[in-house]
Amino acid sequence: MAQLEAQLLEMRKPQSTTTAVLIIGGAEDKVHGREILQTFFNRAGGQNAHIAIIPSASREPAIIGNRYMSIFEEMGAKQIELLDIRERQQCEDLNVQKCLETCTGVFWTGGDQLRLCGVLADTPAMETIRQRVQCNELTLAGTSAGAAVMGHYMIAGGGSGESPNRSLVDLGTGLGIIPELIVDQHFQNRNRMARLISAIACYPDRLGIGIDEDTCALIESDGTLQVMGKGTVTVIDPGEVTHTNYSEVTATEPLSLHNLRLHILGYGDRYHLYKRKVLSTSHLQK
Amino acid sequence: MAQLEAQLLEMRKPQSTTTAVLIIGGAEDKVHGREILQTFFNRAGGQNAHIAIIPSASREPAIIGNRYMSIFEEMGAKQIELLDIRERQQCEDLNVQKCLETCTGVFWTGGDQLRLCGVLADTPAMETIRQRVQCNELTLAGTSAGAAVMGHYMIAGGGSGESPNRSLVDLGTGLGIIPELIVDQHFQNRNRMARLISAIACYPDRLGIGIDEDTCALIESDGTLQVMGKGTVTVIDPGEVTHTNYSEVTATEPLSLHNLRLHILGYGDRYHLYKRKVLSTSHLQK
Repeated sequence: MAQLEAQLLEMRKPQSTTTAVLIIGGAEDKVHGREILQTFFNRAGGQNAHIAIIPSASREPAIIGNRYMSIFEEMGAKQIELLDIRERQQCEDLNVQKCLETCTGVFWTGGDQLRLCGVLADTPAMETIRQRVQCNELTLAGTSAGAAVMGHYMIAGGGSGESPNRSLVDLGTGLGIIPELIVDQHFQNRNRMARLISAIACYPDRLGIGIDEDTCALIESDGTLQVMGKGTVTVIDPGEVTHTNYSEVTATEPLSLHNLRLHILGYGDRYHLYKRKVLSTSHLQK
Repeated sequence: MAQLEAQLLEMRKPQSTTTAVLIIGGAEDKVHGREILQTFFNRAGGQNAHIAIIPSASREPAIIGNRYMSIFEEMGAKQIELLDIRERQQCEDLNVQKCLETCTGVFWTGGDQLRLCGVLADTPAMETIRQRVQCNELTLAGTSAGAAVMGHYMIAGGGSGESPNRSLVDLGTGLGIIPELIVDQHFQNRNRMARLISAIACYPDRLGIGIDEDTCALIESDGTLQVMGKGTVTVIDPGEVTHTNYSEVTATEPLSLHNLRLHILGYGDRYHLYKRKVLSTSHLQK
């Protein structure tokens, strides 16, 4: 069923073989329909894909990397490389560079987003990835920690169960693939609404995107976001905010924020990141 | 400090001795500044108040009822009655009726909102309370379960940690003091955003109000809501919603809901329930 849905989703899109950025909320289906991973595989070129897996966020990079290798092999990928980058200097390695200059798909696994940024930020490897994504030469996917790094600003950690407040979220600098976004993942599953709102209160010129588990915000090069998978993508748009007390409160006092726009996007829903509008929904038959 | 704030809040309001409805998110301060309970006491008439405590939601009505009695006694109330109503027929008792016809403040404690509704709904006692609140003869406060019953529709229970979906929230009929609202309480503390969104998807003609612990939405008779206490009041306004898949999905499939308006209201913020607008905020000095 999920496979059929993935096919329908692909059929709707004339550009189904073009590159995209897939921001995955973690815990994506790796066993059954594998809708999200299958879409990454297709967008990276299908059987002609050359996929680079970067498991640097993980504490067990070899294990998690090999798991994704097996999955993409089963799908029929002929060329897969595991770039087990653990130190920044590896990002200048010629073999790494060559791989990133020629591959058609890069996959960032989960783990700790600070570790992933620590290894990749401001390296030649990262610059190659960014430029090739911008030039639509490369499909990039990140799941969990690999999703968190997509914006210029990044949620590095935080809490839940409190009124939104400045100390509820730890913010850092991400890898800036889609700088406009602040991404949170495992979103409803880990009750992260208050921390994403707190992040947006800090950077109200950004757009907050919360992605549930086994759910993907697939972003086309024109800025169209489409939802795939089992859950929802929550959009918090502060574009019309009329008041915030952010600069007046202490770190633990509750934040006040008036006139946010909130969208709960379900399967097949489309949203334009730059127009900040939900696009007309011609929903898929499920 | 909290006491000073309560005084300032009162000073701003020319109508500080007029009746109001206080919707309290549970776990309100009962020991220190007691800002919220003090405001209820003041609005019920202060030392001239005649307060009726209805602990019917609780499994330990005598204990919880006596606790509130002591608090209001300490504040200087001379006339307090504990209406320990455990059966519906008690709502026709002449002494209960007489108390409710003459008192100046009614306080609903926490517990189970279904129990409170089961005992009070469609009784002469409830009709007296409703009419006297509407005629501005009575200040009514409800905390936790006592807050949940304020709308026509009521959240009776539910879950968290999931994408918004129909099965995430159990809905019932409340006591309809402010019918336009669907109230949730212990709101950010128990991560209830997804269940309130799910409730609003079901009844998009209502306004969703999520109240944090030790926080109060104080509602004047003209529909002005003002925030008091430690946390935030979250307003989910579906008035501009352009799309929902509510009628198309099964109970567990994720909901889709576009163009909600979301306000995080902090201390002193004011919102008009019927205009559905944040009012200009002349924030209190804290």
